[in-house]
Amino acid sequence: MSALPAGFTASGVAAGLKPSGKPDLGLLVSDRPATAVGIFTTNRVKAAPVQLTQRLVRRGSARAIVVNAGNANACTGRQGLADAKAMGAAAGKSIGVHPKDVLVASTGVIGVPMPMEPAIAGIGSAAASLSADGLGDLARAIMTTDTVPKTAGAEGAGYRIAGLAKGAGMIAPEMATMLCFVATDATVTKGALHDALAGGGRVTFDRISVDGCRSTNDCVLVLANGAAGGDPIEPQTPEAAAFAAELRAVLSSLAAQIVADGEGATKVATITVRGATKEREAMAAARAIADSVLLRCAIGGGDPNWGRVMAALGTAPIPFDPNRVDVFVGGEKLCEQGARGPGDLTLAAKHLAENREVSIAVDLHRGEAEASMLTNDLTAEYVRINTEYTT
Amino acid sequence: MSALPAGFTASGVAAGLKPSGKPDLGLLVSDRPATAVGIFTTNRVKAAPVQLTQRLVRRGSARAIVVNAGNANACTGRQGLADAKAMGAAAGKSIGVHPKDVLVASTGVIGVPMPMEPAIAGIGSAAASLSADGLGDLARAIMTTDTVPKTAGAEGAGYRIAGLAKGAGMIAPEMATMLCFVATDATVTKGALHDALAGGGRVTFDRISVDGCRSTNDCVLVLANGAAGGDPIEPQTPEAAAFAAELRAVLSSLAAQIVADGEGATKVATITVRGATKEREAMAAARAIADSVLLRCAIGGGDPNWGRVMAALGTAPIPFDPNRVDVFVGGEKLCEQGARGPGDLTLAAKHLAENREVSIAVDLHRGEAEASMLTNDLTAEYVRINTEYTT
Repeated sequence: MSALPAGFTASGVAAGLKPSGKPDLGLLVSDRPATAVGIFTTNRVKAAPVQLTQRLVRRGSARAIVVNAGNANACTGRQGLADAKAMGAAAGKSIGVHPKDVLVASTGVIGVPMPMEPAIAGIGSAAASLSADGLGDLARAIMTTDTVPKTAGAEGAGYRIAGLAKGAGMIAPEMATMLCFVATDATVTKGALHDALAGGGRVTFDRISVDGCRSTNDCVLVLANGAAGGDPIEPQTPEAAAFAAELRAVLSSLAAQIVADGEGATKVATITVRGATKEREAMAAARAIADSVLLRCAIGGGDPNWGRVMAALGTAPIPFDPNRVDVFVGGEKLCEQGARGPGDLTLAAKHLAENREVSIAVDLHRGEAEASMLTNDLTAEYVRINTEYTT
Repeated sequence: MSALPAGFTASGVAAGLKPSGKPDLGLLVSDRPATAVGIFTTNRVKAAPVQLTQRLVRRGSARAIVVNAGNANACTGRQGLADAKAMGAAAGKSIGVHPKDVLVASTGVIGVPMPMEPAIAGIGSAAASLSADGLGDLARAIMTTDTVPKTAGAEGAGYRIAGLAKGAGMIAPEMATMLCFVATDATVTKGALHDALAGGGRVTFDRISVDGCRSTNDCVLVLANGAAGGDPIEPQTPEAAAFAAELRAVLSSLAAQIVADGEGATKVATITVRGATKEREAMAAARAIADSVLLRCAIGGGDPNWGRVMAALGTAPIPFDPNRVDVFVGGEKLCEQGARGPGDLTLAAKHLAENREVSIAVDLHRGEAEASMLTNDLTAEYVRINTEYTT
């Protein structure tokens, strides 16, 4: 469990929003104003806290994040927006900061009004239990169908970064909410922080969930409070690049943890597409393959079904010649120039069956660009979870 | 089981292409040249028989269709195309017509060369067992994970239409192959036949599978041999409209049978989107909802989870105001203007739990256009089938 950077405290409490009685509400607080940036779901149906926080974060500064699980506060109309504001106001009051300095996030069931009485009481308890050791408590409080809390940390030149995330129902089009919060005591300008998140998010969360998946509640928020001191990290400097690399490491770790904890998943598959003319093209191809429910069933069954890779690739909105495509499973070239290649099917099946982290690669033979997506296997357990998770 | 129209014979035999030893190869033959039209998968990775038949059907006339299950002849390179041609040639020889007059279709495992020896022998047996009563045998021979054969018939003014189909793994993005063949003894010009198929296909198969799903092997072929006599039905006449309506009835029935027989499915859901500005907009919204794996799990669980409807709708590439949207489950208005509506959740749950055919409707309140999609529930049985169906 990573420690919080200087000047941050966190907590997680059981407010009674989850029927299970498990922790479901938490706070992340900076003892001084922090530079704040965020990226948000592109779903047209945005939860109330997303609408609110998207607006607040434009101010560029925040002191705290209040978050709950058990209720998404999505599709809750005007009352939902009022409730989200009231949660921010209650949190601000309990820690002594302006309501506009509190970002709000929620995850859970859609379409049910937030039970405000337990939520407000929970915010009071959470404020009372804030601690410099509270990262793990907060990580546990935002879990829904996650089976493990997810945290990650990194150290830069004189500063630290700590992050936490939730999100277990996996990638497009399943739309489980992905929440991720990162705290750093680095001194960073808004521009440099924005660049770092935009770059890091694009190659991590965009490649598992946020972009393709787009639940009503997805968001990634970063607070940088400068408690580590030093000169501000300005955009497009070597220091900004170093900071971005550290942030990216934290986001990558959290993204991988989310995929590994996918509902009912037993395997994490890296889908790499090489030989594209542009990264965007490689990405579109990798996404089409990663989204194939049929292929994800095959991965779970240890079946090196390269035909399903080709069939999924063919639905990607990109130009390519099927007769030039190679497909590799666990390094075995099962498909060469669009037909059965020299690779060993038995070894490929062994790779899928015996490893928790498996690899599928495609070479389009069109150019030099490449991209990867993470996905997981689709299991009967996934269906069971999502059949029983009721309104 | 519908009867074949005049001048048509059909057969289905066990050629040994399926490991199970079940029927897996068949012929549909007209005793005279028939006007022929087809629609095909838009997947960029097209099976060899699709490539061949797409070219042949442009000639506008055909005498027969040879089809096999057990092997898709997809991702099989140049050899695959040669094999598809050889199957057409063998069929042509065995029934005494030119190879170019034989359309070829395949379904089954991708990426494995067609076992030509049993295929050619099977074509000989199929030719020897052609019969005016063979529609059911042919329908059984093209089944893969289908649990029942699918046929439908209609009668027009002095002519008959009979169709058969297969396709069990359900809608996008699962990509099971959908094959559909229709025979009619009506006398129809190529133009009128083309119009009827284009119109009928758009509101039937496009709404379950072909367009969104796009396997490597999807195709719909129609043969009209004119054995019923009469003046040719010309495009854009009342007779053409009547013929198109009959064809559409046959295609609709087959499409509904395919959805009802979806792998592991226990329910068929009609997703209707109303109040769109254009039919295309309604269609895009309905498709986004029907493709939601999460929602399809909820339907299987009898859970009237209208929040998942809203979340899926939000990912559709169309403009709308979430705060104006209504969602109905089994007629209960569970969501009104984007938030919990007055509908009864218990009645909606009962509707989902107790009916095999269920309905979900969305009103965008933007205009007058509407469209529907058929989908089914996602069950653990679906995953089991697709985990165990190996290369």
